[in-house]
Amino acid sequence: MSLHLSKIAEIAGGELAGDGTVSIQGVARIEDAKAGDISFLANTKYVKYLENSPVSALIVPKTMVLDTQLPLIRADNPYFAFLKVVAVFYPPEPLIEKGVHKTAVIAETSKVGQDVSIGAYVVIGENCQIGDRCVILPGAVLGHDVVVGEECVIHANVSLREGVRLGKRVILHNGVVLGSDGFGFTQEEGKYHKIPQVGTVVVEDDVEIGANTAVDRSMLGETRICRGAKIDNLVQIGHNCTVGDHTVISGQTGLSGSTHIGNYVRVGGQAGFSGHIHIGDRAAIGAQAGVSKDVMEGTMVSGYPAKPHREELKMEAAVRRLPAILKEFKALQTRVRDLEEKLKKLC
Amino acid sequence: MSLHLSKIAEIAGGELAGDGTVSIQGVARIEDAKAGDISFLANTKYVKYLENSPVSALIVPKTMVLDTQLPLIRADNPYFAFLKVVAVFYPPEPLIEKGVHKTAVIAETSKVGQDVSIGAYVVIGENCQIGDRCVILPGAVLGHDVVVGEECVIHANVSLREGVRLGKRVILHNGVVLGSDGFGFTQEEGKYHKIPQVGTVVVEDDVEIGANTAVDRSMLGETRICRGAKIDNLVQIGHNCTVGDHTVISGQTGLSGSTHIGNYVRVGGQAGFSGHIHIGDRAAIGAQAGVSKDVMEGTMVSGYPAKPHREELKMEAAVRRLPAILKEFKALQTRVRDLEEKLKKLC
Amino acid sequence: MSLHLSKIAEIAGGELAGDGTVSIQGVARIEDAKAGDISFLANTKYVKYLENSPVSALIVPKTMVLDTQLPLIRADNPYFAFLKVVAVFYPPEPLIEKGVHKTAVIAETSKVGQDVSIGAYVVIGENCQIGDRCVILPGAVLGHDVVVGEECVIHANVSLREGVRLGKRVILHNGVVLGSDGFGFTQEEGKYHKIPQVGTVVVEDDVEIGANTAVDRSMLGETRICRGAKIDNLVQIGHNCTVGDHTVISGQTGLSGSTHIGNYVRVGGQAGFSGHIHIGDRAAIGAQAGVSKDVMEGTMVSGYPAKPHREELKMEAAVRRLPAILKEFKALQTRVRDLEEKLKKLC
Repeated sequence: MSLHLSKIAEIAGGELAGDGTVSIQGVARIEDAKAGDISFLANTKYVKYLENSPVSALIVPKTMVLDTQLPLIRADNPYFAFLKVVAVFYPPEPLIEKGVHKTAVIAETSKVGQDVSIGAYVVIGENCQIGDRCVILPGAVLGHDVVVGEECVIHANVSLREGVRLGKRVILHNGVVLGSDGFGFTQEEGKYHKIPQVGTVVVEDDVEIGANTAVDRSMLGETRICRGAKIDNLVQIGHNCTVGDHTVISGQTGLSGSTHIGNYVRVGGQAGFSGHIHIGDRAAIGAQAGVSKDVMEGTMVSGYPAKPHREELKMEAAVRRLPAILKEFKALQTRVRDLEEKLKKLC
Repeated sequence: MSLHLSKIAEIAGGELAGDGTVSIQGVARIEDAKAGDISFLANTKYVKYLENSPVSALIVPKTMVLDTQLPLIRADNPYFAFLKVVAVFYPPEPLIEKGVHKTAVIAETSKVGQDVSIGAYVVIGENCQIGDRCVILPGAVLGHDVVVGEECVIHANVSLREGVRLGKRVILHNGVVLGSDGFGFTQEEGKYHKIPQVGTVVVEDDVEIGANTAVDRSMLGETRICRGAKIDNLVQIGHNCTVGDHTVISGQTGLSGSTHIGNYVRVGGQAGFSGHIHIGDRAAIGAQAGVSKDVMEGTMVSGYPAKPHREELKMEAAVRRLPAILKEFKALQTRVRDLEEKLKKLC
Repeated sequence: MSLHLSKIAEIAGGELAGDGTVSIQGVARIEDAKAGDISFLANTKYVKYLENSPVSALIVPKTMVLDTQLPLIRADNPYFAFLKVVAVFYPPEPLIEKGVHKTAVIAETSKVGQDVSIGAYVVIGENCQIGDRCVILPGAVLGHDVVVGEECVIHANVSLREGVRLGKRVILHNGVVLGSDGFGFTQEEGKYHKIPQVGTVVVEDDVEIGANTAVDRSMLGETRICRGAKIDNLVQIGHNCTVGDHTVISGQTGLSGSTHIGNYVRVGGQAGFSGHIHIGDRAAIGAQAGVSKDVMEGTMVSGYPAKPHREELKMEAAVRRLPAILKEFKALQTRVRDLEEKLKKLC
């Protein structure tokens, strides 16, 4: 494929600055770009890669000052503009053939929509509903009474337990488990007794969940992942949790049971949350934070145990100075002792 | 379903206080309860939900003082009592049909017990033994020489490597891997050579293991999960580890190789254990703790590196005061300098 | 099987010290050894197990001084020597039968090499290439255009997304996911838009990847796991990362996107790496470290946030003394106040 830069500016929704007749054959990150490629530059940190790059054009922020002869496309959100261009060079390809593979085992009581793609060895239990245009890849297993909205993509070897409900356009990556039993036991006579986990998991529209992430069903009621939330790989969501609209949770984070995360929250990787706490809207949680208390909306916390990020940074700085301070402290103790002795003599 | 409260008190094994003729149609957490529901209240923290709740009855601790007109069931362990009621309203349903699905591939040399439920596309290798009343869900794969005791539940897409042995009533959630090779290599001439992992994994009776948890086989001998242990999602158990009787390990915790955890130990989420250490019986390990040394029985440790919990709390409190203390320290240094100068003048 | 110790010395490539006619029937760790077993002892920490052990012979380092009557085999790398002996007593057995199981679904456009073992319900998409002598276990799913080099072992329920490429002798344990979409979104008008992940994952020769580990495909270009790297269970490798030759990453570690780890790096368990950082060759990263900056080659870092290990140890020691120091500090403040008052009186 080859496109004039002027055409690409149109696709990107940006303003062309330079020669629009330059012909573009591909897209690449600036580190990897070849002649004929268009790339993007949103962060001055990456300008260093530009020096010896054979790249043919760049998408940049409207306000960026850049010392280059290259033709540019200027956009408000250059990353978003670049994505539109990527989508043209890499049009989405079907993962598997349309239709239902002859080896898929689908219970007669289940309803499957139009234009679906259901792969080999998919198993769909009793009373399920699969929406139109869904793609379910080989080896995925859906228990009974599972509801899948339109245009969902369920990758290979995903497991959905009975009663789980997905909205529209949900993407579940390989190995995702939704609806496993919550981790609840009560001790009686020296043994743990399993607390029946009779609730379910509800995933709203436009949610994406990463590979091998596990979301437990609730004891009663629902564990709910709300509209537009994005959850990375190997995340653990405990029973009866809520993850709010458009919240982003990075890899290997864990939520204990009954924790509620608000809307537009951003959570770094490997963070951990105690159970039964509330995280306010638009809060930000640092990577590896250990969050044991409620977090107010709009605040950023980090560290273990998690505290306001600025406080954490001050504490980290103080601790870094501590070995040196302890030496000074020892010296000060000696000086005070000297003073005391001198004063004694004086009196 | 509708039951008189007096009948429910009987089921729960509790003492009725109030009108036994109240009719109960469901169970719910206090936050979600509707009219006709029974709920429970074990923690005063949740009393706030009671105020506007239409709930019809409550199960509470024998000793709880509660300002309410609601009929109560008083029980020693109200949670356990509540569970018995939940089990009546949600009688366990079969996950899949009884019998062996026609697509299950079971080696002729393997023996399958009575009244099993084996789902579509289950694969069972040579020389396996599957106990009576086991439920094995679609897509589970058992290597050769696997032994599964009576009444186990093996969820979809579980993988059991060759030689793994399960006791009775073991529950393995989706995506569990038992018997993967231990992580052992030895360097020779600049390359890592794989250490053969020829041991196995043994899981005793009444163990439950959460979604996507991995337990490695031992190099020689066994990795062993003992009777009644409960392991949450996404946990990593290294080769040659032992997890003691009735020990509870929360999500995303990791055990390096050859670590031994005693009986009735409780481990918080995301904790990590070095290899070759011993954790005593009834120890408690805080969430996110980094445990690098033996832990004495009955003690609680937390933090990184893990130390006795009270010590850790003191250290955390001290660190929290540190930025303020450093300012005071600077002021004190100045005061001492002043004193030194004044004294110099005096002498 | 029974072998003379002299024969075993030959197999191990070590020097016999003692009676070569002793007959050996098995191998075991020193803790578990029975009469007739050979074991090894590389660490003086384990000498304690020797006292009451019925073990018949030992492999030990050439330089080890050991107070024992047992016949010994002395070797430069006793662990490596022991492994050669283990391999004789436990010759590798085939995991499944040779050949392609009749239920495997392999696209006609795909090419499968000689002497492969492909299990039940394996699914191989369009245009794949499977090398000679590969073993692919039941339930593994390969998307289209996947390339698998010679002698790879792909365990049950592994998922390889479209376009993933494996070198030779790669081992993927159960539940591994390679090529899931990178975690990339850009916000526009209050919603997250998915960044197309059109790159792939390349795994070079002799790599081993642990159970339920997930490696994301790159946005553009490749995520690459280089020659001889060993990755443990439940590890998360973000999009566009590189893991260098012969690097070892322990369980539950996470790499954010575009992080580059050098050669011969050793990473402890549960460590976390920010995105877009470089870790130099032969660096060592402590367990649970939070690495947010580049690490120079050959250095060791630990702690959160990660710093040079010696500095971290000093800081930990200082923090441990902190509660006591704060008391001393308070006392010192009082003494200075006393001095100030006394001096005032004097003047």
